[in-house]
Amino acid sequence: MPMHGADIPLFGVILAGGSGTRFWPVSRHLYPKQVLRLLGSQSMLEATISRLLPRIPVHRLGVVTSVSQADIIRLELFRHGREEMRLWLEPEARNTAAAVGLAAVMLADEPAAQTLAVFPADHVIRDQEALHEALNVGAALAQEGYLVTFGITPSRPETGYGYIKAGRPLLDGRGYEAVRFVEKPPREQAQAFLADGGYYWNSGIFLFRREVFLEALARYLPETYAALSRLTQEGGPSLEEVYAALPAVSLDHGIMEKAPHVAVVPADLGWNDVGSWSALYDLYPPDPRGNVRVGRVHDRDSEGTLVFAHQRLVATLGLKDTVVVDTPDATLVCHRDRVQEVKDLVADLARQNLAESQQHLTVERPWGRYTVLTGGPGFQVKEVEVLPGKRLSLQFHRFRAEHWVVVQGVALVTIGTEMRRLKANESVYVPVETPHRLENPGPEPLRIIEVQTGSYLGEDDIVRLADDFWRQPEEGGADG
Amino acid sequence: MPMHGADIPLFGVILAGGSGTRFWPVSRHLYPKQVLRLLGSQSMLEATISRLLPRIPVHRLGVVTSVSQADIIRLELFRHGREEMRLWLEPEARNTAAAVGLAAVMLADEPAAQTLAVFPADHVIRDQEALHEALNVGAALAQEGYLVTFGITPSRPETGYGYIKAGRPLLDGRGYEAVRFVEKPPREQAQAFLADGGYYWNSGIFLFRREVFLEALARYLPETYAALSRLTQEGGPSLEEVYAALPAVSLDHGIMEKAPHVAVVPADLGWNDVGSWSALYDLYPPDPRGNVRVGRVHDRDSEGTLVFAHQRLVATLGLKDTVVVDTPDATLVCHRDRVQEVKDLVADLARQNLAESQQHLTVERPWGRYTVLTGGPGFQVKEVEVLPGKRLSLQFHRFRAEHWVVVQGVALVTIGTEMRRLKANESVYVPVETPHRLENPGPEPLRIIEVQTGSYLGEDDIVRLADDFWRQPEEGGADG
Repeated sequence: MPMHGADIPLFGVILAGGSGTRFWPVSRHLYPKQVLRLLGSQSMLEATISRLLPRIPVHRLGVVTSVSQADIIRLELFRHGREEMRLWLEPEARNTAAAVGLAAVMLADEPAAQTLAVFPADHVIRDQEALHEALNVGAALAQEGYLVTFGITPSRPETGYGYIKAGRPLLDGRGYEAVRFVEKPPREQAQAFLADGGYYWNSGIFLFRREVFLEALARYLPETYAALSRLTQEGGPSLEEVYAALPAVSLDHGIMEKAPHVAVVPADLGWNDVGSWSALYDLYPPDPRGNVRVGRVHDRDSEGTLVFAHQRLVATLGLKDTVVVDTPDATLVCHRDRVQEVKDLVADLARQNLAESQQHLTVERPWGRYTVLTGGPGFQVKEVEVLPGKRLSLQFHRFRAEHWVVVQGVALVTIGTEMRRLKANESVYVPVETPHRLENPGPEPLRIIEVQTGSYLGEDDIVRLADDFWRQPEEGGADG
Repeated sequence: MPMHGADIPLFGVILAGGSGTRFWPVSRHLYPKQVLRLLGSQSMLEATISRLLPRIPVHRLGVVTSVSQADIIRLELFRHGREEMRLWLEPEARNTAAAVGLAAVMLADEPAAQTLAVFPADHVIRDQEALHEALNVGAALAQEGYLVTFGITPSRPETGYGYIKAGRPLLDGRGYEAVRFVEKPPREQAQAFLADGGYYWNSGIFLFRREVFLEALARYLPETYAALSRLTQEGGPSLEEVYAALPAVSLDHGIMEKAPHVAVVPADLGWNDVGSWSALYDLYPPDPRGNVRVGRVHDRDSEGTLVFAHQRLVATLGLKDTVVVDTPDATLVCHRDRVQEVKDLVADLARQNLAESQQHLTVERPWGRYTVLTGGPGFQVKEVEVLPGKRLSLQFHRFRAEHWVVVQGVALVTIGTEMRRLKANESVYVPVETPHRLENPGPEPLRIIEVQTGSYLGEDDIVRLADDFWRQPEEGGADG
């Protein structure tokens, strides 16, 4: 008789390496879906973390993401006091088998990581209790040597998901042996699965004993296993060298479809993978004409339309099944049936090196955020917000001078060897090559307008002399 | 035998009272279609003026517009050195019979205004020579006592225009008696007109002897005639009082449809009334899939779509027959068949007192322009551009202080009794209630960033002490 799953310690591995293309222009390459607040005040990542607590304590959680998204993920963890979590940075994305393999290999030294649970960072799960219950069932099955998947009862013949066929019941029918995986079936097949009743959507959540997973990895993806294993050897190759040679294979396709002892635990989680703008449309209550409108939207006579606006006004007239997404520097307008192709559109923009594919006008920083307001030959204007009690690094610039005007709150300003307190309507000048620091000593946000002038205004003109955060002087590349 | 039309002096009356709603969000109530540069570098108004020269010299041209649009029309005339032109301001719009009536009455003292030609300020006419030729034919007919209209050969069964039926030939067939006016016929009737061949579109251009027009006005719109006539009486009612009582009737419906001696001169002018976004679509060459794209637009796979962007990026995907118009503070997305309803949508916005129905973030001024970059509680940031050799009024503000940072060009700044020259990267502070002036003494544009702080930041907090332009100290209501 199996151990009760609730007693089994789990280590949670959160996969947060999404590329930020499907929710463009709200997502950007450097501001991917997992840090978006698409559905309320929490980011998808923070919602993923907080719904695992207390089943999995925060010090037994880790995140796998890419080097290019490390800054924003680290910032998101930092903002919520999640510094205890592990963070693994992949030099480049190599799909889920490599990501989970990396975590499994790196957790060799962690006694509390005998059993791993893997979670996408960017799904919606409404029923946290059902998740914990399903994890306990999965944990019990994992102790029997199963690679466990979690299955969602299909509600429509969706062609964009993977399906798992349930076989022999396990644990009194709380789970099943998984006998077949079908990725993205054609519509007729999906309809047959729905009619059959024995098929589940693959939720992308996995649970297994670390050793069982590594054995399966060694057997079904020996190249990946061998390469990753070298990471723990003294004097072995670098992470970059290892990753350059790794095949890009998904955990489902590379291992689950092939391994013999795979289980599926049906779980009614209130799950949505939020895979596109169209999925988001499904998550909001529509008006009687089937429109979903968020932000400053004025509509006349549209139907089945999703409009996602922010501060700017979006006016729509007589549209049908259209998606309009507006951000301060870019707007997307597309047919609702074509939302899957947004990623191709963003690939076009990236090929053209358009900044709008990379980041927003507002850039998040550990101390707050800044927004580029305007710029021209030899100047750039930013609005800078510093959170209470936070300060930027002590820094200087080689090519630019800065004028700061405080418009809200109180600033403690260091310019060279002088320190001054400035309040709203006071200003200060920071000459080129002069060390300076901006700090918010007060209880309310500090807001300044910064006018930069100089021959070169790139964000990488920064020399950090001291920093409260994890940024090293030699890092450069980011303001403040 | 009639006098040769080319020898007859004309006075041109340009109707520029359009309400700025059909081309929202590019047009605004305070920035109407006639000042837009929809089709190149000239505004519709300036194009209308310049195509009349030299047939009608500039000192024999006048503009009728509304009080609320006076600033922007005056500015447009000023920018092109058209100060010699007459300007009549209607307190409120009362359709074309009143507008032309006002000009005709006010021109009683003008000996060169025996024969009036009336032009909409916001139509496209590609063939200027054909226009001059048609005006000469019309001028000859006007001397015979005709009220002359100009007819465009119809190219499609358009249901949005007025049609004129030609009768007995005049002047060897260069004109005809107009025997019937039909405004906006149903499609079948429009098709029958097209098949008949004897019908023309009403171009909205008119030509007549001033006395002949006033007689017709007195006969067919006696109320309008009587009210307007009182304007020239000493001690008569004010323009506001007169207009409050005027009926709103078009020249076509009120006079042309009823008067017996009306002529139509066929004119192949390359004419387009640019009545909606859909008309603009017709004026640009489409790509092979029928898309017209202006500005920073990236498209995948759309058809029959008009996208009008500016600096921001607009990305479109799989759209059909859609109009997307983007501006810095508002975006319109509508079906191409519904563009006529844009005016209703703007009426909605105006009812909600949304600033986006009234004006742009960039506001034109006689000395240059300013753009609102951002704002918040107690502050507002503007980018101010001063044209070479121009200066703002000498002014002060009761409630706000201003920080100016020069980012381009050279500024001559007066603060209180002090005058200073500032170049890029220099700044100055303007305290509350301190008279100040900003001037560009140099040959290149002057650009400054202005950070305003204060308890009240409305544009009407301005006391003008001296001004180079037409603005009076008591006017207020507009910055600079």
